[in-house]
Amino acid sequence: MKILVIGGSGTIGKKIVEFFSKEHQVIVAGRSSKDYPVDIADTKSIKELYKKVKETGKVDAIICAAGEAKWAPFKDLSETDFHIGLRSKLMGQVNVVRYGHKCLKKKGSITLTTGILADDPVYQTTSAAMVNGGIHSFVQAVAIEMRKKIRVNVVSSGVVVDAHHKYESYFPGHPPIPMEKMIMGYRKSVSGRVNGEVIRIYS
Amino acid sequence: MKILVIGGSGTIGKKIVEFFSKEHQVIVAGRSSKDYPVDIADTKSIKELYKKVKETGKVDAIICAAGEAKWAPFKDLSETDFHIGLRSKLMGQVNVVRYGHKCLKKKGSITLTTGILADDPVYQTTSAAMVNGGIHSFVQAVAIEMRKKIRVNVVSSGVVVDAHHKYESYFPGHPPIPMEKMIMGYRKSVSGRVNGEVIRIYS
Repeated sequence: MKILVIGGSGTIGKKIVEFFSKEHQVIVAGRSSKDYPVDIADTKSIKELYKKVKETGKVDAIICAAGEAKWAPFKDLSETDFHIGLRSKLMGQVNVVRYGHKCLKKKGSITLTTGILADDPVYQTTSAAMVNGGIHSFVQAVAIEMRKKIRVNVVSSGVVVDAHHKYESYFPGHPPIPMEKMIMGYRKSVSGRVNGEVIRIYS
Repeated sequence: MKILVIGGSGTIGKKIVEFFSKEHQVIVAGRSSKDYPVDIADTKSIKELYKKVKETGKVDAIICAAGEAKWAPFKDLSETDFHIGLRSKLMGQVNVVRYGHKCLKKKGSITLTTGILADDPVYQTTSAAMVNGGIHSFVQAVAIEMRKKIRVNVVSSGVVVDAHHKYESYFPGHPPIPMEKMIMGYRKSVSGRVNGEVIRIYS
């Protein structure tokens, strides 16, 4: 398979690239990529990426492990702060799907990324939880309409082992998720036949 | 109790006003209200409403049954279409909570409104499902931070009886929800002690 990974140099993206590279051709895109730069908060940049990828031939799968949202106490979050998440993690991922057909083979798959906050939020995550929850419902809704053309799923993982030292204090009592276990979520979406599934990996 | 109902002339809002008016003082606000006009997509108008309500004395509860999102096939929804829901049903309801303290008594409650699409979407609802799902996660997250000051819940109902004739064809196989049953969700939030709860009324 040929797989496009957007956000391929982040904590999760790196592992996705490492795993799928063993058996597949992987194109790594992201904000810091020189060959395939993309910022999903900018719709134009998604379209440009897809155009560039298509020139090398359409892909079998798109995985998006990009997208941000502002963390802060609710009382400190401005409307502009909320819009960071709305533009990036929420509409950014929606746009990854909206324009996916431009570089994705028919019957290909798109896999988005959220996280446990959607179901089990912690302090300072009103914005982050919200955009994650929005993507969960979006994926279920969009799968109904796209099922004859492509599959769309989302992987929602708990705090992964590689980020645990950084986020541990924010997630008291949340078990760290081994990277191999997190990867299985993406594998299920890319190589399986599931569609419209929120693949939860919380323990 | 004194209760502010935003969106008090819609299908659901009307019944909420009718029910709570039996035993409580209800202030009805909405886009078509002459005394308490408000469009939740416009943050300034929420602030003005709260200021006006506060002049009559703070309320014990705010219920929001307002908010819209565009329904259309995914392929026809423009980014601007998605922003209708983001501004209104999503950020509109977030802002109802953000500024709630301006007219809500300490220990008061805010009750938002979504719908079954968040969990069980149908055709043409990628945008509507998304904003509903976003609010579900938001409510769980915000309750963690506000619990010493106010309670925040959301009522997510299936297609109510009074709207069934209009939406029946969009929701094949979805049982119509009696209005009295839907109302119980708001009653649980306003008069109960629950906090951060997605009150699902799907059958």
